[in-house]
Amino acid sequence: MKREVESCMKALVDLNSDLGESFGAYTLGNDGEVMEFVTSANVACGFHAGDPSVMLKTVKLAVKKGVAVGVHPGHPDLVGFGRRKMNCTPEEVYAFTLYQIGSLRAIARANGRKLQHVKAHGALYNQAASDLALAEAIASAVKDAGENLILVGLANSAFCKAAEKVGVPLAEEAFADREYMPDGSLMPRSRPGAVIHDPEVAAKRVLRMVKEGVVTADGGFDIALKPDTICLHGDTPEAVENARKIREMLEASDVAIMPMEKVITSRG
Amino acid sequence: MKREVESCMKALVDLNSDLGESFGAYTLGNDGEVMEFVTSANVACGFHAGDPSVMLKTVKLAVKKGVAVGVHPGHPDLVGFGRRKMNCTPEEVYAFTLYQIGSLRAIARANGRKLQHVKAHGALYNQAASDLALAEAIASAVKDAGENLILVGLANSAFCKAAEKVGVPLAEEAFADREYMPDGSLMPRSRPGAVIHDPEVAAKRVLRMVKEGVVTADGGFDIALKPDTICLHGDTPEAVENARKIREMLEASDVAIMPMEKVITSRG
Amino acid sequence: MKREVESCMKALVDLNSDLGESFGAYTLGNDGEVMEFVTSANVACGFHAGDPSVMLKTVKLAVKKGVAVGVHPGHPDLVGFGRRKMNCTPEEVYAFTLYQIGSLRAIARANGRKLQHVKAHGALYNQAASDLALAEAIASAVKDAGENLILVGLANSAFCKAAEKVGVPLAEEAFADREYMPDGSLMPRSRPGAVIHDPEVAAKRVLRMVKEGVVTADGGFDIALKPDTICLHGDTPEAVENARKIREMLEASDVAIMPMEKVITSRG
Amino acid sequence: MKREVESCMKALVDLNSDLGESFGAYTLGNDGEVMEFVTSANVACGFHAGDPSVMLKTVKLAVKKGVAVGVHPGHPDLVGFGRRKMNCTPEEVYAFTLYQIGSLRAIARANGRKLQHVKAHGALYNQAASDLALAEAIASAVKDAGENLILVGLANSAFCKAAEKVGVPLAEEAFADREYMPDGSLMPRSRPGAVIHDPEVAAKRVLRMVKEGVVTADGGFDIALKPDTICLHGDTPEAVENARKIREMLEASDVAIMPMEKVITSRG
Repeated sequence: MKREVESCMKALVDLNSDLGESFGAYTLGNDGEVMEFVTSANVACGFHAGDPSVMLKTVKLAVKKGVAVGVHPGHPDLVGFGRRKMNCTPEEVYAFTLYQIGSLRAIARANGRKLQHVKAHGALYNQAASDLALAEAIASAVKDAGENLILVGLANSAFCKAAEKVGVPLAEEAFADREYMPDGSLMPRSRPGAVIHDPEVAAKRVLRMVKEGVVTADGGFDIALKPDTICLHGDTPEAVENARKIREMLEASDVAIMPMEKVITSRG
Repeated sequence: MKREVESCMKALVDLNSDLGESFGAYTLGNDGEVMEFVTSANVACGFHAGDPSVMLKTVKLAVKKGVAVGVHPGHPDLVGFGRRKMNCTPEEVYAFTLYQIGSLRAIARANGRKLQHVKAHGALYNQAASDLALAEAIASAVKDAGENLILVGLANSAFCKAAEKVGVPLAEEAFADREYMPDGSLMPRSRPGAVIHDPEVAAKRVLRMVKEGVVTADGGFDIALKPDTICLHGDTPEAVENARKIREMLEASDVAIMPMEKVITSRG
Repeated sequence: MKREVESCMKALVDLNSDLGESFGAYTLGNDGEVMEFVTSANVACGFHAGDPSVMLKTVKLAVKKGVAVGVHPGHPDLVGFGRRKMNCTPEEVYAFTLYQIGSLRAIARANGRKLQHVKAHGALYNQAASDLALAEAIASAVKDAGENLILVGLANSAFCKAAEKVGVPLAEEAFADREYMPDGSLMPRSRPGAVIHDPEVAAKRVLRMVKEGVVTADGGFDIALKPDTICLHGDTPEAVENARKIREMLEASDVAIMPMEKVITSRG
Repeated sequence: MKREVESCMKALVDLNSDLGESFGAYTLGNDGEVMEFVTSANVACGFHAGDPSVMLKTVKLAVKKGVAVGVHPGHPDLVGFGRRKMNCTPEEVYAFTLYQIGSLRAIARANGRKLQHVKAHGALYNQAASDLALAEAIASAVKDAGENLILVGLANSAFCKAAEKVGVPLAEEAFADREYMPDGSLMPRSRPGAVIHDPEVAAKRVLRMVKEGVVTADGGFDIALKPDTICLHGDTPEAVENARKIREMLEASDVAIMPMEKVITSRG
């Protein structure tokens, strides 16, 4: 019944991307271009990437482009870009997530903006997706930071349990360019076929997720997956081009693209 | 006329100290003891000292001890403890001050506390005291951070001009253990006699500042100095002892000691 | 036969400790005291602790006290003191170990000293002890650094295989205050009884290791363990006291204590 | 007399460039291209740029391209890229210069290479050029590091006095793209005309320096300037192109381009 009602409604989804990953004299990505097609920006906060001046510039750009601003907290690992698994305790993760949320919130507020969401970066995201204690630490920081921030987490992961347990709004995330396992987890990158390189294939998969709430997993069977937000990569010219194509195909298929806050609210 | 009225009122002043300067496995100072006699804590935010876990612990301790919490932003110079002059631009100082304010505010908020003030640390404080562009950068960050935070600045310095120009509440600070020049600036530490080691002498000087609004400067003449807050050092056992003595002598002389927010409000 | 010859010889062993772990304004441990009873110093090189000025001071102190100087490379994790497991690749570990060796060697050379050994710190040590690829990365850096440096590694661990494979001199290490498993590995700290707090018990265990080449493992059976060097902790006043006691008991039992270079050479 | 002899000899000079300035996930410059036309590489050592893995890669590339390897020590200011003046003490500068020399030397040695020179980076270079205590600190680190490393310093600056006083070989450096003051110092970048943008003009100036030992300074008069090495920038595609042109024009004018070690030796 609910399904039928939904199918009458226009399909909607948020597109998010990691932004503000430059640092000091180093430039990474092309934030201006990426902000043309995403609706939510995950802004690095100086731990794995970014610095206060880059954050300020990124927030100003997001305001100008009308993109919703979120926090992208990472491990304190600048040289490893936050991609290396680190055994930080849940207490440490709670404290540094709260810290990173606050740092960006002050900068956003100075530019007349409220924060929308919090999405962990790299190894922190991957570790927390399968470690409930870490996911709860992040969810608790989101909760205690106040202002009703949305926690972004991999669909079917520990993030979902943590959001429910802690009591924070959740946006379930899917990846356009990744193969899924039958249990709903991501196929490890080390396996052949884990990454989908053809933007057309990726776009069609996203379309099915958004419109039908399913995706074909490894083995050929469909599994349920109805994400609120899709992660698009924008750190290389090719990635930007693919992401743009995905957006265009979604729009051509009558999918409404809007910030995750509105997606969640519409779902009710 | 105003002076007469004031002299009828009880003398009042805030006592502040730099706290939360531990880092990772490194412990510095004895925050628990120092919080017994100060009314305002300047909490390091990870740039010159402190880390998210230390900040969280420090805020919890301040809540427990009833000490007002403020931000202690410093240069990004951990190995130099923020004591080395760095030529950061006003734009960089603005951005990293805003960042540091936000980082502590989220942690304070998670513990049910509002921030009271912002006091720059070490070289940043000294540079801004005589560099209006830097002082304005800090004042602007305080302003744009919102919530009516108080800017703490050296009395008779560029901080005062910046606070007025930018439009933020100001708490004028004096140092119990420092000699003053006839123009109201601090005698450079490199000169003999710049630091007052006898806590009794220091306490008497503070008493005159607070009660009479004057202090004897280098050369023997009195200059006007009516601070809202006095900086006490607590990074060595001796410093803690001296600070405690100063507080006791002030109380014995009927000076009311309270957070700078109340001192300023009382002044009107 | 060899055993009999050995038993005629005087028992000998090196005592090593982690030193130079202060950082900037932060002081950790009491290097001066610890250097009174150890024969080899593992000097931190700025990644998990230490900074160039601290390293210089530590090397000068070691020269004065006649303690052999070695490198104590750690993960790039200052706030975690190198104690948090990090998934650095073998290539990264190779590069940063070489870097840290070089940094200390230049400082030692400027003070007329050659380096003696390399002992990984904290999580890096623990990870490499059971991960041959990491142990080989460290051994290769030791090899490629030249000057015939000794690799220090946990007895019965991946370090031993790596040293043999890569072709570097090895000093096998044992811990005075740790319980051993029947397979020769350390009992995990999380298990009750893993840490031996009584210095007398610890000293007696070391004595048996050094004189008889055995230690009683968990379960009550003796296992073979004949270390070249014993790790003593000196980061707390209590630890210093215990370490001193162990040294005294060893000397009273006619064990010759000397830098690991001599221990290894004597063994032939 | 000496001048006549020199004029009979082929003019010779070294071309140096800052390389290995990438960091972690961040790429800066195009080292492969720049190494096609320079003879000496100044390799960043992790303080203002670079990391152990980048250093290793850069040294391997220099070995392959036949470029001499030198150390490029900078202030501990990664976010500021070492370009911000910092008040480090001569003792701190001595220690961190020694540290950085050692770190690169171990990596070079592992690749069969000796280091050739040490050239301070950015703000450290500029500060030391006019601060004899800092220049001496750097020169002393170069001396104490051993192996007869060459100190690179701005011609007519405190580096020259320091090299003489401390007793280290000196390579005097000139800048192809900078205007000089009548006293031989560089015109501050803030003044109009301080930077020469036309590669042809720059090349002609370098040619006169190298062949005639003079350059036209601000005001139109020639001043003596006979550099051993010329700094070429390679951090932008345009800079690379200009640098390549300068090399081509020098070669077309029969200037021999070779590492500074050989230039100095030839001079005697």
